[in-house]
Amino acid sequence: MIIILKENVTDQQIDHVVQRIEALGLKAHLSRGTYRTVIGVIGDEALARSAPLEAIPGVDSVVPVLPPYKLASLEAHPQPSVINVGGVRIGGGHLAMIAGPCAVESAEGLDVVAGAVRQAGANILRGGAFKPRTSPYAFQGLGEEGLKILRDTGERYGMPVLTEVMDPRRVEMVAQYADMVQIGARNMQNFVLLTEVGQAGRPVLLKRGMSATINDLLMSAEYIVAAGNADVVLCERGVKGFDSATRNLFDVSAVPVCKTLSHLPIIVDPSHATGRPELIPACALAGVAAGADGVHIEVHHNPEEALSDGPQALLPDQYAELASQIRRLAELFGKEISPVAGELA
Amino acid sequence: MIIILKENVTDQQIDHVVQRIEALGLKAHLSRGTYRTVIGVIGDEALARSAPLEAIPGVDSVVPVLPPYKLASLEAHPQPSVINVGGVRIGGGHLAMIAGPCAVESAEGLDVVAGAVRQAGANILRGGAFKPRTSPYAFQGLGEEGLKILRDTGERYGMPVLTEVMDPRRVEMVAQYADMVQIGARNMQNFVLLTEVGQAGRPVLLKRGMSATINDLLMSAEYIVAAGNADVVLCERGVKGFDSATRNLFDVSAVPVCKTLSHLPIIVDPSHATGRPELIPACALAGVAAGADGVHIEVHHNPEEALSDGPQALLPDQYAELASQIRRLAELFGKEISPVAGELA
Amino acid sequence: MIIILKENVTDQQIDHVVQRIEALGLKAHLSRGTYRTVIGVIGDEALARSAPLEAIPGVDSVVPVLPPYKLASLEAHPQPSVINVGGVRIGGGHLAMIAGPCAVESAEGLDVVAGAVRQAGANILRGGAFKPRTSPYAFQGLGEEGLKILRDTGERYGMPVLTEVMDPRRVEMVAQYADMVQIGARNMQNFVLLTEVGQAGRPVLLKRGMSATINDLLMSAEYIVAAGNADVVLCERGVKGFDSATRNLFDVSAVPVCKTLSHLPIIVDPSHATGRPELIPACALAGVAAGADGVHIEVHHNPEEALSDGPQALLPDQYAELASQIRRLAELFGKEISPVAGELA
Amino acid sequence: MIIILKENVTDQQIDHVVQRIEALGLKAHLSRGTYRTVIGVIGDEALARSAPLEAIPGVDSVVPVLPPYKLASLEAHPQPSVINVGGVRIGGGHLAMIAGPCAVESAEGLDVVAGAVRQAGANILRGGAFKPRTSPYAFQGLGEEGLKILRDTGERYGMPVLTEVMDPRRVEMVAQYADMVQIGARNMQNFVLLTEVGQAGRPVLLKRGMSATINDLLMSAEYIVAAGNADVVLCERGVKGFDSATRNLFDVSAVPVCKTLSHLPIIVDPSHATGRPELIPACALAGVAAGADGVHIEVHHNPEEALSDGPQALLPDQYAELASQIRRLAELFGKEISPVAGELA
Repeated sequence: MIIILKENVTDQQIDHVVQRIEALGLKAHLSRGTYRTVIGVIGDEALARSAPLEAIPGVDSVVPVLPPYKLASLEAHPQPSVINVGGVRIGGGHLAMIAGPCAVESAEGLDVVAGAVRQAGANILRGGAFKPRTSPYAFQGLGEEGLKILRDTGERYGMPVLTEVMDPRRVEMVAQYADMVQIGARNMQNFVLLTEVGQAGRPVLLKRGMSATINDLLMSAEYIVAAGNADVVLCERGVKGFDSATRNLFDVSAVPVCKTLSHLPIIVDPSHATGRPELIPACALAGVAAGADGVHIEVHHNPEEALSDGPQALLPDQYAELASQIRRLAELFGKEISPVAGELA
Repeated sequence: MIIILKENVTDQQIDHVVQRIEALGLKAHLSRGTYRTVIGVIGDEALARSAPLEAIPGVDSVVPVLPPYKLASLEAHPQPSVINVGGVRIGGGHLAMIAGPCAVESAEGLDVVAGAVRQAGANILRGGAFKPRTSPYAFQGLGEEGLKILRDTGERYGMPVLTEVMDPRRVEMVAQYADMVQIGARNMQNFVLLTEVGQAGRPVLLKRGMSATINDLLMSAEYIVAAGNADVVLCERGVKGFDSATRNLFDVSAVPVCKTLSHLPIIVDPSHATGRPELIPACALAGVAAGADGVHIEVHHNPEEALSDGPQALLPDQYAELASQIRRLAELFGKEISPVAGELA
Repeated sequence: MIIILKENVTDQQIDHVVQRIEALGLKAHLSRGTYRTVIGVIGDEALARSAPLEAIPGVDSVVPVLPPYKLASLEAHPQPSVINVGGVRIGGGHLAMIAGPCAVESAEGLDVVAGAVRQAGANILRGGAFKPRTSPYAFQGLGEEGLKILRDTGERYGMPVLTEVMDPRRVEMVAQYADMVQIGARNMQNFVLLTEVGQAGRPVLLKRGMSATINDLLMSAEYIVAAGNADVVLCERGVKGFDSATRNLFDVSAVPVCKTLSHLPIIVDPSHATGRPELIPACALAGVAAGADGVHIEVHHNPEEALSDGPQALLPDQYAELASQIRRLAELFGKEISPVAGELA
Repeated sequence: MIIILKENVTDQQIDHVVQRIEALGLKAHLSRGTYRTVIGVIGDEALARSAPLEAIPGVDSVVPVLPPYKLASLEAHPQPSVINVGGVRIGGGHLAMIAGPCAVESAEGLDVVAGAVRQAGANILRGGAFKPRTSPYAFQGLGEEGLKILRDTGERYGMPVLTEVMDPRRVEMVAQYADMVQIGARNMQNFVLLTEVGQAGRPVLLKRGMSATINDLLMSAEYIVAAGNADVVLCERGVKGFDSATRNLFDVSAVPVCKTLSHLPIIVDPSHATGRPELIPACALAGVAAGADGVHIEVHHNPEEALSDGPQALLPDQYAELASQIRRLAELFGKEISPVAGELA
């Protein structure tokens, strides 16, 4: 950590800053420049972070030199992590093909979608039972009944299942049905929930919040890993942008940025990122070309009657075509779409 | 609601859209323009919102004409609401002066700050016992012990107290100690928590999320009111911006925008909005001049040893000077700083 | 165009709105809903746009149904345009591979870079002679001397050349040396300059402004086309974002969005979008996978001594590897990298 | 300047960095921390900025300690500048009250508005003769004829006049008519134009670009001052935001931020910032309370027939009421609205 002092800092103030640093068990290394004096803080940067050094009189700014996360960092784990979700591998050259409806609406409907996406090459089935809806008057999901349908359907098609959890009181219950639990974008900094899923014994799909920096995303991953669960998959799903042409702004650069900082896999969700079916294929392919470890797509057999997010769902046929293109792209880059259990590799 | 059809829509598609509208118990009114056909949907717009009309083939876009919130809207309640927090009024010409440290750290420290801000004219004491920290390694608050200190200190100085709640499992407990509970910016769309505080029997301070539109903010308020709690105070605390000159981007226009849409009071929090003590007074005054119903400021007697957010705290003396300016501004605009109980009005 | 009236609009106000519409030579079609009255405006929407209908008392908002650009729209020209830059085709399945240093610094330096990128497969050589620098104290380019070097070097390697123009007084001069002229992001809404390049008789590369919506971008293209120059290539080069992990936020979805609205080709510039060499290959490939008609990359043989934007330049070797990957990706998608003149196709 | 080296930097790379620094005539001061080595660069930071140090192998990042502007900085000129516009003072406790229509449309119309705003207390008359319009098909201004009308009207009412210049070829002509020339937001980084107005001999109103940081704004001011014109007034007029509730996002904190960095006056333009008349008064008052040196407001006597930006204009009566509130606020803060020539102070 480097501390930049103010132009008019006094010697007494400098002494005080040095004392504060030493009181933390760290060493201070002074460097007087032509215009400004800077102090290099030597020792464990985590100790330095624990104190509000910027609040000391005479301090202009504080520049950390290390990332604030450890367990999620590439330095701690230089090889890419490979996460196993009910037999399907994500990361390290293995692509997740996650597909399914926004919400589980009925056993019949989910069966149609699951059969179609399984056929097209999806290897994880998604479906929401607890839905975070902006409006209190909108369909909130089928709850535990939805989880049962999802579990049954997944088993019938040999696909592990992914579903969102929103309530720390329900993490244990959701984990009984799901092979992977999702933290939605709006809960990315719900630290109570992160800590809870850190103890749930299931891989976690952590969606990036709409105004979260990559650093914020990795800090939220750190919460989960620090709580005991190293099986975290990151997901870029669009950040807040100024152009209403798309629902969110798909930040494809998040993929290579994360690869330079973390060993955790990262997938993309072009459905939520764009909110428009006609843009999803291009953005899905962009994500894979950028190095994403998988693609998360919402598919519905009858979008105009969907109870949630119908306007952004792909039809099964559209998904099949996209999946075929993703497969070719994966081959070009020497990647493999991890087969589902019971399937010949 | 207005439905704009695609340029090349077929008559068959139009018929299908009309059928879908009528199936919802609504009427469709066709208007064929030179370039496009539009359909006016007549009847309860909430019914129209419940269906994904944009997903119907031939539909280009859907334009709602009413806001999606009801209970929070000005139309439902044309007079500004006045919220009573332990005897202190907020809204309708009454200003909240909320002040205190980011986190409750000790009884002694809080006593110093509470005495100082009470003397300066603050009428609600704030202090965090459960802190949403970006890092799992940072100080997370004193928990229930912190709540007890807050309650005791508030009573000693005759000030109602405000504190944040993050966990739906602890809403009941927090509500036993607090006169007002806060939903932090990161939890603004934690719908589970919103529903829970909607049943807590305490006024709620709802902070705007960092990427929340005003519409999103009012929808989250609607969650709380719809769950049974009409005592919601909104809080602008800065949105995500592109300029690192400030921690967040203080959106002062949120104040008049909310006034045109909702009866709920709105206050400003320049401490989190700017993150820099030297900018807080100017932004606090800007908020009051823009019509805010109160000001929320973090104050610490020794910022360089604060356990949370020290660099953005005002010193007690700085707060006193600011409070005096706010008081003069309030007088100019014919507003009153609601006195605390036991104080002569 | 649709006009949504206010809830409490009077009949007199409605009559006045109708009169204003009719005075423009348009027809008004009233539709009274349960909560609001809306007016469909029938006739040439451009006429309706020319009047500030939102300013009429009783009007709540105005919803256009057509895009405000015509010549740049897909409706006006349903087939993708193919732009010819000195024999190199861009659009309609033909990829531009634009490469070169940020600034022309010397004949020797440019020769090294041009030889390398030509060898790697680039088909257009770029280099700045007039540089838009944030600081008045930074290197501003070699001016006409730089243009001469660029022209000579391009001819030596058989490559058409691209360079930026900033000053309307120099458009004619720049056009004498360049096969394609560039409008930089900061000048995307410099309408004087747009009009001037619209008369320059050279294809134009129009870079998206940092806070420009796609609609804004297409309106700026419209300026150029309306002034007489239909040879416009759009360029996504990153918009303003909130995360300092990248210099700008690479909006890869701009590619498919433009394809749904306009016939003009669109290329990507991951150099400016990310500002970090290690991220450029991933974002370049993402752009091509998303359907971009070309890739614009800054290459320098000795970045640490570059006079402009050194830190974001690729080395010639890095470019060669990337170009090879782009070529394979192009083949997968059935696209062709248009050969330079004198090269065997 | 501080250079942070990469974790795995070699001694050879460090030596090379030091050599590069010394070659610039600067000294390097090495500081080896527990995890990272940093180099303090001692000497003129401008020299260090001139080289792309981040591009040197082994360098992780470069942290400047000084602002990149000099002439615009508070360090160069610790007292607030007071700019004289035709006898009206701006800055140092003197408020500019700039008002007038978006565009000059006719002598009669401007006369009505000028009379009204003069009566209400405005001290500078604004009106556009060259309009930067997003659409090539929109009204582009009356040109020199508009300038003449503006000049005549200003003289009749004893008010200095402000108008925008867009074309470097017309700066001289515009400066003959105007007491102050405006650089619009879209031209804030049109460096050719900035240099030209730096030689025009007239005070300049420099509007902040929609995606410009405060640093960018001050660098553009630096261009003008470095070209010889120290009479620059900054203007906050809203930045790009994600919420369509307002046209732009009014960044009121820009006012105190600029005050901590620069001696130049800064005013606010709530008309463009919000784009909605009902929000303008609140934001104007917020700006003054935050310490702005003036307020720029668009006023039109008949907004529904305005040729440009009608929907965001205040009516003369609305302006008069606002001006009266601003006057009271100015008095409260001990500021003065500089009287126009011929008016009793």
